[in-house]
Amino acid sequence: MQHPDIKAREDVVRTADSLVACWRGRSPKVHCITNVVAQHYTANALLAVGAIPSMTLSAEEIGAFVTRAQSLLVNLGTFDPERRAATQIAVDAAIEHHVPWVLDPVFIDRSPSRAAFARELVTRSPAVVRLNAAEFVALSDAQPTPEALAAYARDHGLVVALSGETDLVTDGTRLAAIANGHPLMAKVTAMGCAGSALVAAALAVEQERWRVAAAALLIMGVAGEVAAAETDAPGSFGVAMIDALYRMDDDLLRVRARVS
Amino acid sequence: MQHPDIKAREDVVRTADSLVACWRGRSPKVHCITNVVAQHYTANALLAVGAIPSMTLSAEEIGAFVTRAQSLLVNLGTFDPERRAATQIAVDAAIEHHVPWVLDPVFIDRSPSRAAFARELVTRSPAVVRLNAAEFVALSDAQPTPEALAAYARDHGLVVALSGETDLVTDGTRLAAIANGHPLMAKVTAMGCAGSALVAAALAVEQERWRVAAAALLIMGVAGEVAAAETDAPGSFGVAMIDALYRMDDDLLRVRARVS
Amino acid sequence: MQHPDIKAREDVVRTADSLVACWRGRSPKVHCITNVVAQHYTANALLAVGAIPSMTLSAEEIGAFVTRAQSLLVNLGTFDPERRAATQIAVDAAIEHHVPWVLDPVFIDRSPSRAAFARELVTRSPAVVRLNAAEFVALSDAQPTPEALAAYARDHGLVVALSGETDLVTDGTRLAAIANGHPLMAKVTAMGCAGSALVAAALAVEQERWRVAAAALLIMGVAGEVAAAETDAPGSFGVAMIDALYRMDDDLLRVRARVS
Repeated sequence: MQHPDIKAREDVVRTADSLVACWRGRSPKVHCITNVVAQHYTANALLAVGAIPSMTLSAEEIGAFVTRAQSLLVNLGTFDPERRAATQIAVDAAIEHHVPWVLDPVFIDRSPSRAAFARELVTRSPAVVRLNAAEFVALSDAQPTPEALAAYARDHGLVVALSGETDLVTDGTRLAAIANGHPLMAKVTAMGCAGSALVAAALAVEQERWRVAAAALLIMGVAGEVAAAETDAPGSFGVAMIDALYRMDDDLLRVRARVS
Repeated sequence: MQHPDIKAREDVVRTADSLVACWRGRSPKVHCITNVVAQHYTANALLAVGAIPSMTLSAEEIGAFVTRAQSLLVNLGTFDPERRAATQIAVDAAIEHHVPWVLDPVFIDRSPSRAAFARELVTRSPAVVRLNAAEFVALSDAQPTPEALAAYARDHGLVVALSGETDLVTDGTRLAAIANGHPLMAKVTAMGCAGSALVAAALAVEQERWRVAAAALLIMGVAGEVAAAETDAPGSFGVAMIDALYRMDDDLLRVRARVS
Repeated sequence: MQHPDIKAREDVVRTADSLVACWRGRSPKVHCITNVVAQHYTANALLAVGAIPSMTLSAEEIGAFVTRAQSLLVNLGTFDPERRAATQIAVDAAIEHHVPWVLDPVFIDRSPSRAAFARELVTRSPAVVRLNAAEFVALSDAQPTPEALAAYARDHGLVVALSGETDLVTDGTRLAAIANGHPLMAKVTAMGCAGSALVAAALAVEQERWRVAAAALLIMGVAGEVAAAETDAPGSFGVAMIDALYRMDDDLLRVRARVS
């Protein structure tokens, strides 16, 4: 019998390998509702791995875009009545057409009305909620222990992907801990948003959401390490991350993965 | 007598040479209605060649900006009632003050309401319509053969600039085929939008729209090749493109131009 | 007795040293109302020096963000009724909670309605107004002589920071002239906006506004020179500026400062 940690690692690495190949081969369409600051970098990250981003927020046409997409990202980083209305339409379309979607409740710890909206969205079956520790507290009123994350995932029937020094991904029964990444990732705006977009891109090509969420975050983390091997400052690091995502391969993932 | 292909090449290269010099010497003002994802990269591309971009979308002041600009870009990548109203005001101002304008009907193949709006805008005398094959089909209900492009250009009194592996530019009688460029250009968001912005910048300094549209696309394509000689990944490629536009010169254009 | 120029230089350099340390040590929160073109670059510049940017423009939550921030930037580069309403709420919150704020009246020379709004905002006690020569003329109806700048600063109880080949910073009695910087800074979109954001970040950690405004502009200018030592083209220059801001240190400031 294999050690469970080794099995989890193998599982996630294999899924990450497969994601890289599927993105390049299938060019999945990913619709992103994301904040203005993040749109440019997020679009470039998605293009780098092989996905096709679209980003319209117009209430009039967002339904059509989501319907034709293979997945949807809802990032709350820009938040106003118009954006909120577009989000409702997009989520309606996603549910009706079985398009998996990811919720990234950016900065809900800084704005009560945003937190309330995020709680409402959680009832509408996102496949994955990706957030940091402060945002988890604002969403769940619980501290982000592995047990609390698992309980939240079970109660809401979704995968929780918590970003931090070590990313934690749980569907309520399984837990993956991904220790890859680099501190410079926190010095580039939209890096977290781009990570959530990769999770959405992952759901666009594979169904098993716990595994693909963990695999997408592994790919981000490894890309961060590759970029940090090239530079020690955030301007060139942001550029090098996009290059690293584009060049990602099996060997890098196998050698570098720190998953348990 | 010169071979016609050689003549077209010479014509377009000479115009491109002249554009590079005029942009640097005259700093033309180019107002851009463009999608949020593309604004940053488009502004940097225009600054790199020597133009002065402005990008306000406010209905209240867009007329004043267009009136003082030497050309206008209308990119439909972000599309909502407010943006549409601003576009109408901008085009009114452009027509009244003889400011040439370029239409880039982004993603009209993905949204019927956007396609309808693009068709309406075509009746308002854009100098150039720049689009890809799928967008041409959505606009014209015809396949993008050279004959169909020429017929569309004649019927609507405009220049069609079709982007693709080989760009095709026609005013209904003349056809330029530009084979420059690099596949990495499709891996950087806003690259097409930046190309359309260069066409607008070209119209800001020279009147002959067929020639300048072809020349602007030649400049983009050559910049793409120069950038691809420096890197093989899209993050650094996007940066290198801006550098290449800034450094563009006669020799590069003459040596690299593949125009027929 | 020290020569006054040497004293001013020493003062500004020491303040700049202190800013670099404080930003890294305290991670001040800076809320930015800025135009869409500039948001991404501005956020990365703030992150590079150690500050934490937020950028929401939603009327519903901007008050909460400003209240929890240590300073506020109001850049008029995007201007519409919604943005204007959000600006009023943000400035109200800044005044109520003693959050210092910076006004950057972008392009008011191109739009009368924007100029009128800027004049109204000046009555609401910004700590610093940062602008270029054409914008100063539109704001004050005076030519940007050192005397006119000083008179304007005194009359309105604020610091004027005029950008140009040499930046001039005055509180009405003292005048700092900062000759650092590089022409490529004008070839990268949002560079001026990022400079104003650094002034806001400076006010977030130190109270003496004349000194910190001059010090923040010195840091920008030195970063520009460091970046220009690495490249001669604007794409890579924009990236190198962010790297240079991140790596800024005492030695660079002391060796390079040209302040009088």
